[in-house]
Amino acid sequence: MAHQKDTVLVVGSLAFDDLEMPTGTFNDVLGGAATYSSIAASMLAPVRLVGVVGADFPEAHLRSLRQRGVDTAGVERQAGQTFRWRGRYSADLASRETLDTKLNVFADFRPKIPTAYRQSPVVLLGNIHPKLQLEVLHQVDKPKLVIADTMNFWISGEPAALDEVLRKVDLFVINDEEARQLAGTHNIVRAARVIRARGPARLIIKRGEHGALLFDEQGTFFVPGYPLEEVLDPTGAGDTFAGGLAGYLASVGEITPATLRKGMFFASALASFCVEGIGPKRLLAAEKHDLIGRLDEFTRMVDYGGTLGFED
Amino acid sequence: MAHQKDTVLVVGSLAFDDLEMPTGTFNDVLGGAATYSSIAASMLAPVRLVGVVGADFPEAHLRSLRQRGVDTAGVERQAGQTFRWRGRYSADLASRETLDTKLNVFADFRPKIPTAYRQSPVVLLGNIHPKLQLEVLHQVDKPKLVIADTMNFWISGEPAALDEVLRKVDLFVINDEEARQLAGTHNIVRAARVIRARGPARLIIKRGEHGALLFDEQGTFFVPGYPLEEVLDPTGAGDTFAGGLAGYLASVGEITPATLRKGMFFASALASFCVEGIGPKRLLAAEKHDLIGRLDEFTRMVDYGGTLGFED
Repeated sequence: MAHQKDTVLVVGSLAFDDLEMPTGTFNDVLGGAATYSSIAASMLAPVRLVGVVGADFPEAHLRSLRQRGVDTAGVERQAGQTFRWRGRYSADLASRETLDTKLNVFADFRPKIPTAYRQSPVVLLGNIHPKLQLEVLHQVDKPKLVIADTMNFWISGEPAALDEVLRKVDLFVINDEEARQLAGTHNIVRAARVIRARGPARLIIKRGEHGALLFDEQGTFFVPGYPLEEVLDPTGAGDTFAGGLAGYLASVGEITPATLRKGMFFASALASFCVEGIGPKRLLAAEKHDLIGRLDEFTRMVDYGGTLGFED
Repeated sequence: MAHQKDTVLVVGSLAFDDLEMPTGTFNDVLGGAATYSSIAASMLAPVRLVGVVGADFPEAHLRSLRQRGVDTAGVERQAGQTFRWRGRYSADLASRETLDTKLNVFADFRPKIPTAYRQSPVVLLGNIHPKLQLEVLHQVDKPKLVIADTMNFWISGEPAALDEVLRKVDLFVINDEEARQLAGTHNIVRAARVIRARGPARLIIKRGEHGALLFDEQGTFFVPGYPLEEVLDPTGAGDTFAGGLAGYLASVGEITPATLRKGMFFASALASFCVEGIGPKRLLAAEKHDLIGRLDEFTRMVDYGGTLGFED
């Protein structure tokens, strides 16, 4: 039965990435956490995007987002240059180093949620300053679900503000290194317990190619990473995961342990497209039938027949 | 319906391990790949063990194996000392270095398969010299399933003998670093294709705490590692995985894509007990109801509801 889908509000960075990859250097690649999250979410539900770009950001990028159903009225354009990140990946793509970060217009970003966006049932807060994440929450009306990410920089530098964010979000989505740093313990299961005790009833810990773990009231759930023959660029995969999850939950309109679990497959499938291209190129080209095909392969990958018979 | 279970023949090392762990140093710990594999397999099916120990190996260890249904008539006792490995683990247990290896009586090990063992439907070849693995295969009568492991030392040092092993085994079980080394490529999916082209129709690549991937005629299958709060010692987890899988397949008596997939859950569940204790202590204490409980938690951990509905 068709129903009105919920809308996802995504707040975070739009950027240019300069990527030094084993396969070559790619400059001026469309990047930013909110960009990846919006593209992924827009495969499944309507999206509203709040962020800031400089005078150098091509209108064509915003147009291509709009063509996917992303409302870009919340993207401010400021005089100056767009946030730019330059990074170098290791030969096996398993690690990367930041060579340069130019915040540019993003340095003074204060998210302003347009009145028309205030009623957004699903809110995805990218890894911006936790005080800005809180400002967004002050500007919206009781969402069904608030999802937030963060990063090492805020974990070490803004623990008090981050603690307040933790108390106000429903679902916290971070990677394993961030979880360890935030909880102060190496063991992932213990880290999850520590973080959930500080607020979020639901926590997802992303482990890159190794998949992601959900910890919630129903226990622990695991979704694998899709094993790929060709990985070109992991940039944005985690943001794609979070955006895909938000989009799925908005599309079904209910936030339950069951929908969260199904949503993690959509999230991981979309992240698997993301890493197959430089920047968001492959993700932007993925169509619904590609996603259905990958979800189908995914479910076969975890299908053990439904029962584990024990021979006595 | 109760049926006669198949028997597993395990050939490989019995050892003493001296373990320098973050929690302390543990000397003279019962070790060896065949030891761990036998203990795991014996939870599910009868086991026959072929290996060698020195005069210093306590009879009590062999007796405890026999009490679990491991036939130890194939374990030779030689004058001299038992194989001994000394290793040091990193603080997070994610890596280890070998401090000392004393082959002792294992240096001259030539597996002799007792006549009573020649008809063993499931054969598990531990990571001994590939020429010895081939000698075992010459001594047994058409098993239903031959499973083999190997290690970095033989991949670099005995490529021709290992190639012959690859052509003669049904299921090859190695870890990700070994797969990369053997295939000469970093990407795991590509490495699997290269290795399978050299012989084994079925390949399992173990990824430690991140689980294991099966590549077979039906596609790719993934079993996660069980997320644990307390990991004390990863030694033998991979051997436990292989032994648990062999034991499960022997217990059901049929080697099919479906039984292989179910077996990977038993294998991963048993490996999760292994890492919870120093040496095989926790694994030895695990009872059938513990295994059933963990399998139950495991299946809940991957239960996404069976369908991934798409909202249009």
